[in-house]
Amino acid sequence: MRNSRRGEVDPFIVMDVMERARQAEAAGRHVIHMEVGQPGTGAPRAALDRLTDDMAAGPLGYTVALGLPELRARIARHYGEWYDVDLDPARVVITAGASGAFLLAFSALFDTGDRVGLGAPCYPSYRQILRALDLVPVDMPTTLDNRMQPVAADVDADDLQGLLVASPANPTGTMLGKPELAVLADACAERDAALISDEIYHGIDYEMRPVTALEVTDETYVINSFSKYFSMTGWRVGWMVVPEDHVRRIERLAQNMFICPTHASQRLALHAMDCPEELNANLAVYRENRRLMLDGLPKAGFTRIAPPDGAFYVYADVSEMTDDALAFAAEILDKAGVAVTPGLDFDPVEGRHWLRFSYARSTDDIREGLARLARFMSERGAT
Amino acid sequence: MRNSRRGEVDPFIVMDVMERARQAEAAGRHVIHMEVGQPGTGAPRAALDRLTDDMAAGPLGYTVALGLPELRARIARHYGEWYDVDLDPARVVITAGASGAFLLAFSALFDTGDRVGLGAPCYPSYRQILRALDLVPVDMPTTLDNRMQPVAADVDADDLQGLLVASPANPTGTMLGKPELAVLADACAERDAALISDEIYHGIDYEMRPVTALEVTDETYVINSFSKYFSMTGWRVGWMVVPEDHVRRIERLAQNMFICPTHASQRLALHAMDCPEELNANLAVYRENRRLMLDGLPKAGFTRIAPPDGAFYVYADVSEMTDDALAFAAEILDKAGVAVTPGLDFDPVEGRHWLRFSYARSTDDIREGLARLARFMSERGAT
Repeated sequence: MRNSRRGEVDPFIVMDVMERARQAEAAGRHVIHMEVGQPGTGAPRAALDRLTDDMAAGPLGYTVALGLPELRARIARHYGEWYDVDLDPARVVITAGASGAFLLAFSALFDTGDRVGLGAPCYPSYRQILRALDLVPVDMPTTLDNRMQPVAADVDADDLQGLLVASPANPTGTMLGKPELAVLADACAERDAALISDEIYHGIDYEMRPVTALEVTDETYVINSFSKYFSMTGWRVGWMVVPEDHVRRIERLAQNMFICPTHASQRLALHAMDCPEELNANLAVYRENRRLMLDGLPKAGFTRIAPPDGAFYVYADVSEMTDDALAFAAEILDKAGVAVTPGLDFDPVEGRHWLRFSYARSTDDIREGLARLARFMSERGAT
Repeated sequence: MRNSRRGEVDPFIVMDVMERARQAEAAGRHVIHMEVGQPGTGAPRAALDRLTDDMAAGPLGYTVALGLPELRARIARHYGEWYDVDLDPARVVITAGASGAFLLAFSALFDTGDRVGLGAPCYPSYRQILRALDLVPVDMPTTLDNRMQPVAADVDADDLQGLLVASPANPTGTMLGKPELAVLADACAERDAALISDEIYHGIDYEMRPVTALEVTDETYVINSFSKYFSMTGWRVGWMVVPEDHVRRIERLAQNMFICPTHASQRLALHAMDCPEELNANLAVYRENRRLMLDGLPKAGFTRIAPPDGAFYVYADVSEMTDDALAFAAEILDKAGVAVTPGLDFDPVEGRHWLRFSYARSTDDIREGLARLARFMSERGAT
């Protein structure tokens, strides 16, 4: 049967590591999972209870395409509470996770062949979704000096029609400050490139608060999710804030491409926004895990890391230890019993010199994982 | 801010009718809803109870991209039970509704500019999703003589790279028999066009059983949904069966474009497949509604209708009454208090001569709606 060229997206290299970890566990070995990109916690308990009531109250049929009006209003209020941004609920679009938001945003903004800049390293699916839509992902190498984030000069140099930034970023955890975001927004506006701001790790931050692109411009698509801070990964619900004159456009696309996001997930999201205590308790765990990581990783020998401003990742330069992060990750799994992610999925070029360590799971796991890594590195150094 | 050309999809014309109906209800009028395309019933009660248990048992995080293995296996078994087709569960892909399946299928099969044939009238989102992906929807006019379904000659005449068929179809309810499907499959195979078979209304049938494309070929993408027979519209879960050598391709696209379908919805779908009693009770309502429609619509004057083989629609040719189905639908809403769908969304050309009547709601509503239509038509004829 026929195949498309656009459908030839790359496989995830991390899948090999995960399969290897699964095999090790099936063989009876104990593995610490520092490769996972999702919280170990579920949705807030009180929110689940309220969803159970909703399920008893009536059929959860289709919602309108832009999502439940009360959830859109609640998210608009959230921008006032978190960022002191006054946001019209009409600009809020509920989506099938951030994934659904990317599909809508790219379809609304770009035509075949358009070039969209990505700071490398980045979330690998950005590239693959762009390819599947016959758009051109343009990797913009970043440096530790620039906190692993793109700079305005890249926008012009790469002849872009769009720029996608993430703050806090995956895999690095680094954030963009307000001045840096403003400069990028200006650079985009000057050449009519669309600025898309991935803010899905907002709320998972430690020493400084993240800035939403809406603080510097209304001419942007902001993408967020209930998967991380709100701990609702499997529920596939997120949101997008778009310029006022793009709402109808997005509505038409959403009606056709998705009909609506999962109704139950939208209800659960609404309820989860009323559960700050449980969510902040999750955050306290990440905070302690991060403290352990920032102490333990350098002690184990991973000293060159990106500024871990937010999210639950540490991205470490291991170029002094290997030119093959994939093989190195396999070695760490085999010898230390710790699954970590090689950088190759995030950055096809420089990723062979980097590893991503996630601290999304329990503090006990982090402590044990760090002990194993220290032992492994010490033995490795001795050989 | 910049806009794409591909994002310029058409609005749904029916939205005007629905908004008018909403305004009438807000003004205190009672409206019978024969415009809706979704069951009035919710997911099976016992399935919801089991999902509540799942929600208590642990976090419903991401599943693997192809979906829960037990659900894929259960669906494969379903093909044995319903169609006597022996299906490898590895070929079953769980999707974010049929909508998600279309996005995956089109991305996997077609490149920019490829032409995909649709029997007109058809589900309007086919056209709009194709356009959003920079593909070319090609309307193939159908006739009552061919039961409003495309024929093999169309595939060659229109120089297609793909053909999308639906049986039972929306808006007509007509089905394709096994010989007709086989001829279409052969016509596609001869010119290496991909055959996509939309089977989302399977299970909602009355006098003859629907045929799955898998009964005539393995070289096809079959798309199905839990929204209709399984009565789970708002849960956004469906499935796709693809050729064995396309599974890895779809897996990579699904990982990137969706991560996974909603986990809770997948659990609920699995449970719903164990609830045939409640689902068949829903079907008994449709059967009685259909009996009333096939008696009442002709008596009211709607005599020229597509063979209503399945689904819960009757598509009526009203060309003897109007050249403007949109205005006619508005008149029916205003004077009879019955909301119906003009054909224009389904067929931009001939749709001005057709109306779609849905009988998805309660039997009492159908009875009252038919009485109102009969009164309206009688008064209309008398003026």
